[in-house]
Order: sequence, then structure tokens, then C-alpha cells
Amino acid sequence: MAAAEEGQWVLMATGRSPTNIAVIKYWGKRDEALILPVNDSISVTLDPDHLSATTTVAVSPSFPSDRMWLNGKEISLSGGRFQSCLREIRKRAQDVEDEKKGIRIKKEDWGKLHVHIASYNNFPTAAGLASSAAGLACFVFTLGKLMNVKEDHGELSSIARQGSGSACRSIYGGFVKWCMGKNNDGSDSIAVQLADEAHWNDLVIIIAVVSSKQKETSSTSGMRDSVETSPLLQYRAQTVVPERVLKMEEAIKSRNFESFARLTCADSNQFHAVCLDTSPPIFYMNDTSHRIISLVEKWNQSEGTPRVAYTFDAGPNAVLIAPNRKNATILLQKLLYYFPPQDNDLSSYMVGDKSILSDAGLKSIEDVEALPAPAETKMPSQKFKGDVSYFICSRLGAGPKVVTDESLALIDSVTGLPKGV
Amino acid sequence: MAAAEEGQWVLMATGRSPTNIAVIKYWGKRDEALILPVNDSISVTLDPDHLSATTTVAVSPSFPSDRMWLNGKEISLSGGRFQSCLREIRKRAQDVEDEKKGIRIKKEDWGKLHVHIASYNNFPTAAGLASSAAGLACFVFTLGKLMNVKEDHGELSSIARQGSGSACRSIYGGFVKWCMGKNNDGSDSIAVQLADEAHWNDLVIIIAVVSSKQKETSSTSGMRDSVETSPLLQYRAQTVVPERVLKMEEAIKSRNFESFARLTCADSNQFHAVCLDTSPPIFYMNDTSHRIISLVEKWNQSEGTPRVAYTFDAGPNAVLIAPNRKNATILLQKLLYYFPPQDNDLSSYMVGDKSILSDAGLKSIEDVEALPAPAETKMPSQKFKGDVSYFICSRLGAGPKVVTDESLALIDSVTGLPKGV
Repeated sequence: MAAAEEGQWVLMATGRSPTNIAVIKYWGKRDEALILPVNDSISVTLDPDHLSATTTVAVSPSFPSDRMWLNGKEISLSGGRFQSCLREIRKRAQDVEDEKKGIRIKKEDWGKLHVHIASYNNFPTAAGLASSAAGLACFVFTLGKLMNVKEDHGELSSIARQGSGSACRSIYGGFVKWCMGKNNDGSDSIAVQLADEAHWNDLVIIIAVVSSKQKETSSTSGMRDSVETSPLLQYRAQTVVPERVLKMEEAIKSRNFESFARLTCADSNQFHAVCLDTSPPIFYMNDTSHRIISLVEKWNQSEGTPRVAYTFDAGPNAVLIAPNRKNATILLQKLLYYFPPQDNDLSSYMVGDKSILSDAGLKSIEDVEALPAPAETKMPSQKFKGDVSYFICSRLGAGPKVVTDESLALIDSVTGLPKGV
Repeated sequence: MAAAEEGQWVLMATGRSPTNIAVIKYWGKRDEALILPVNDSISVTLDPDHLSATTTVAVSPSFPSDRMWLNGKEISLSGGRFQSCLREIRKRAQDVEDEKKGIRIKKEDWGKLHVHIASYNNFPTAAGLASSAAGLACFVFTLGKLMNVKEDHGELSSIARQGSGSACRSIYGGFVKWCMGKNNDGSDSIAVQLADEAHWNDLVIIIAVVSSKQKETSSTSGMRDSVETSPLLQYRAQTVVPERVLKMEEAIKSRNFESFARLTCADSNQFHAVCLDTSPPIFYMNDTSHRIISLVEKWNQSEGTPRVAYTFDAGPNAVLIAPNRKNATILLQKLLYYFPPQDNDLSSYMVGDKSILSDAGLKSIEDVEALPAPAETKMPSQKFKGDVSYFICSRLGAGPKVVTDESLALIDSVTGLPKGV
């Protein structure tokens, strides 16, 4: 280590990583410590403008210990998730030289330096939208940049995997497959990109963030319980998923929305079926989730072919995927008919790409109130105001990126502490 | 046919049959026409004093056609369910002589006589409590009595099966197994009694009739969809259920409540998992069902061993089985804490064996309001008034019986029409 004056400098890097939503689900580990899954999974990466984690990692000889802040609040780093990633990246650290600041760090010195990490999600952490996937992927990616790690994205995905399984899929944009791998050391359990976000860029994603009163089972303990008690899980992993993965790869390659939608819905439902087959049973979906599924299924059935796909992770929120803007606007009209905003405030009810509202002809709450009942529903046209907290409209997006604008760094380059703390 | 004066007489029989609730579930037919299942199932027969169908079958040369009334309203007999049973029983009809009335019907004459059928359920038909099982079993049993059919209960169960699959299990009291059979003609797909109701007579059944706004999928079309689309159904039928059936038989034989409860809960959940794995997915349980499961699971977990079992059929109602009166009263206290009566009327909130209320120390609505929050629940002690319509307290019961008291017949012996119509 040789710096302007030892202990006086702070070196930082900032990155931004997307979240992802699985269309072929990951549920169950074959190795808890290394986070090796029982089956392959496939996801789409969401636009980081709408759903992403931004992380700044700083290093300084003046830091007496590793510390981390999430959304402005300091959190413990003693858990295994961040420690595994930190250890793996440190192992691969290379010489770094910042001529402007006069800082030189030799590869063997990284082990002596502590890090400060500040991370921020541009969407509610508690909403069950894979915030840990975005966060861990961002941490690994940004730390790798700071420490001049030369490893490729596959290797980085394998490190992110050890922090949070699905984080490995957030290392790429577009369509991503997490190959379960065969090796006991996990070296071949990595993510690969199937196609980038430009390959099928007319897909529109609408997320319904569903209000929930229930405390949810964490996915970590939930999948452990499923592996131990569900008689259906191994059959799903060994027999059903391998075939679905092949079909899904083909559907993505050929942009076959019908096949993509059928597989996505069926696999979401099967994942929740395995949760229900767990002892004690795990319920992630609630009555609102069920109503959204019914709405989509009835529409799809009345059209004879899927107009939209749905998928649910370990929570009640619906992620709806439309093949184009037109279907997305019709979907939105149906959704808002049943789930109007609680407080009549339309503009805060739609987050992300708000322009979908005007595309759907919904410029005011009066437009929402004037919506006709969807023709295909025979059910009494009851409404469920308040059952959806808000919607997010998004699209597919790119993988992690370095944020070069220093004003966007989350850590103060002088104090080495989060800005505003 | 030789009667006092032809056309002037009405010959009748009345019977009463219990409903049953499966603890190893029937879900999926391998033959739609004959109603042959994809796996064995096991049920408990409920006390007919609380849940049963009463049916009067009348025959007269003056009846120009077969007619049926359910709960006082005439219903069509053109559907296959009753026709199959009617045909099969008619085939087996024997000579009948009623000396008192001077009626003699020869076996070959039954084919020329039409029947009037009046049936009544002593519980809400729409509540999803296997009303068709009780109704079809009662129809077959009573018609068999009227027509002097000599076949044994196994044969009768096979005929009832062709009316409604699970009806075959209502031909016996106590614990009943429906053997799926192997023959293509269904001749070996019959019910057998595993043990009568006296074998384990301290079991207490509490049913929570759950309010539902959703229109439910009929079990007939639901199981057809599951057979056609669920990748998990065949695995369940071929691999999981056979082992569970053996264990359940053993648990019943040895009155091992722990094993009985674990199998009952797991199999209910797996049946609903298969429904969810169906395309489009079928949801029978709702948020209230989930809350009742959570309540039971938390209690069972806190005690380290099951205090009560739950099972759900094709609807949101919870059927809860306690090993004894003590556990049943504690269960009732927990249930009423979360689900107090909507209109504060405690006495109409408990149907069947109402004495369970005073056993649980609940003599007035004030006693319900004074109930403490269950200690094992960490969830905020929110209450869900109105989410349960009412409770039924019952026990195991006997199989079908002839009702000899003519005043209880549902058909007027002079007009041949339902009384009061």
C-alpha cells in the first residue's frame, strides 16, 4: 500500500444491478452452504430504472472494520450471505492504481483493508420483489470493480449465488438461465445469458404489489422445509423442470409468447403447489393473488390463446408479462376495474413507466370509475379497492453497470460514511 | 303386478345416509363413465344426526315418469348420476310383496314402474360438505330396500360409486376405504369398512363453514382438468398415495392419532397442491382456510405433537378432527377467539352437538369476547369476524339405515308427491 498519506484516502466504486423474476422457478437447495439448487431456473431481468439496487463500496486504511448500510440503516454483516461474497471477491482481487488520487493497492494488501458498503433499492425492500437478488448481485459486481477482479460474468454469478441463490441471475440482462451444475464444489452452478434484453423488447411487465397482512415465510427457510418434507419436490425437480427448461429456452429463442406464457404460468403454479405440499404448508399467494390469476385465466381462455402471463415469487405480488403494449393496456384496464386505488390518487398508484396509464386511456380517477366490467367474467362484478397497494410498469432490462457519476455514490468520499448519515 | 286395484297404490321406502370426509383424498378418475379413481382413498363417516341425507323412494303404476325433488324443489333426472344408479338397482330388483297393502310386484315388472324420489339434506347443500355423497348413497340404499335388492354393501357401494365417486364410502359407518380396483369394468372398485364408528369413538369433529364469495369449480370438472393437465397428479396417485394408505390403515387400526393427524393434514394439502398444479389452477381454499391451517399448525408445533388434524375438500370449509373432547374444547376456544360470530348470536353459531360450547366454557358472547389470544401465535391478534358462517360439532357415525317411522317419509303415501308440495 502506498498512498498520498496512509489512512487519509478513501477509494470507492458504485454499481447498479437489476432485479430478476424467475419464469422457471428455483425452489430447493441440494447444498445449503454453497447454495446449489435442485434444478435449473430461468428468469427475465427487469429494467434497472424501475427495479434495481445501487451499491457503493469504499475501502480505506482508516476503516477499522467491515460495515454495511442498507437503505440508510446500518445492518449486521455477520451473516453468511455477504461474508461468502466478500471472501470470494477478496481472493480474486488484483493490483489497483488510482493515479489521480495517488493510491496504489497491491493484490496481497486487500486482505488487510476493510470495506464500507452502502446499498439502496429504488423499490420497497419489503415488497418481496427479489431485493436480495439485486442487492447481492450489485455487491459482488461493484466489489469486483473496486478490487479489479478480472473474472468473467459466469464466475461473478457463481460468487453472487453464494450470497443469495437467485442473485446469480441478476448478473446479466435479458433472459438468464441458472444452470444447476453437477459438481459438488458448485463450480459449474453458474448463470448464463440466453438472450439479451433487445432480443424480445416488446414485452411489457406489470407488477401488482399486493397488500398483505400475513407474515411471510422467508424463502430460505421455506425451501429448506420443502426439500425436507414435500414428496412432490424431487419429482418436480428431476422430471418436470428439465423438460420445461428446454421448452422455455426454445420459446424465448423463437419469441413464441404462447409457449412462454403457458410455461410461465404453469411453473409459477407448480412452485406454489410444492409450497402447499410442504409440512407445515407455505402459503405465499392470498385471495387477491388468486383473483388476479382468475382474471388473467378467464381472459386468456376467452381469447383461446394467452394474452398475458403471470408469475408469483415468495409473496402475494403478481408479476404480469404482456407480449406487447396493446395487451398490457387492456390488462391494465381489467386490473384497475377490479382493483381501483384506495385513495383515488391515480398517479401514485402507478410506479415505473407511468405512460402506460395514458396509453390505456386512464388519465383521471373518473376514467377508472368509467371502466366497463371485463366481458369474459361471469362473476359478480365486485370490486376490491385497497387489495392492491400499487402497480409498477416496467420492461426487460440490462445487467449490472458501473455508475461513473460520482455524485450518485452513496458514500461520502471524504468521511467514508454513507451520505447524509 | 297384482295390487288391490291397479294404479291406486303407492309403495315407499325411506332411508337415511351419512356424509363422509376423506382423510386420504380421491382426486382424479381413470374412467369417467364408470367413475373409477386413480388411487385408493380413506374416509371417516360423520354422525348422520348432524350431517346426512334422508331419501324416500316411491313407486306406483300411476306415475307416468321418474321424478325427483331435492330439498323440496324438483330437479332434473336426465343427468347420468341418478340414471346409472337407477338402472343398476332396477337390474337387481327382486319380487316384493306387501301383504298389508295387498301389493305384489314381480321382479320382471320393476322395469315398467316409475319412481318418485324425494331427498333432503339436514345441512346446507351449497356448503360443500359432500352432500352428493350422502344423497347418492342414500338413493342407492333406499331404492335397494324398496326393490328388495339382495346384494351386499360392497355391491351397493359399487353402484353408489357410479352416481358420485365418494358416495361409495357413505355406504358404511366408521372408517371406510375405497379400493380403486384394477378391473376395467369397475367390478372391484368398491368400498370396504376398515373399522366401525365404535372402534375410535372419542374423536370429535368440528367443521368451520367458511364464508365464500368465490364461485367454486365443481369437483367433477376440477378433477378432470387435473388429470389432463397436472404433471404432479399421476406421481401422487402412483407413488405417494399407496404408501399413505398403508400408513393410514395402520394408524386407524392402532388408534395412533399422531400418525393419523400427520397423514390427514399432509394429504389434504397435497390434494390442494395438485389443484394448484392444474391448468388453469383451481383454488378451493381461501385466506380464511389458510388462517385456520396456520392456527392449527402453530398449536401443533408448539405442543411438539399434533393436537388436532385438519382436512379440506373441494371448498374452503375446514374439517377439524380432535382426538378427544379436551382438545376439541381448546380448539374451539382458539377458533372462536379469531372467528367470533358476526351477529353475536352464539347459539346459532354452533350446529350439531352444541354442548361443546358449554364444555369450552362459552355460555355467552361475553365468554367469547373474554377469550385470551392463543399463546403460540406471534401474529398480531387480529380477529376475523364474519369469515366463518358457523361451526358444526359432530363425531363419527354409522352407515345408512332404513327409517321405519312412516311419519318421517318425505313422500305422501296417497298422492305419491313430496309432502307439502
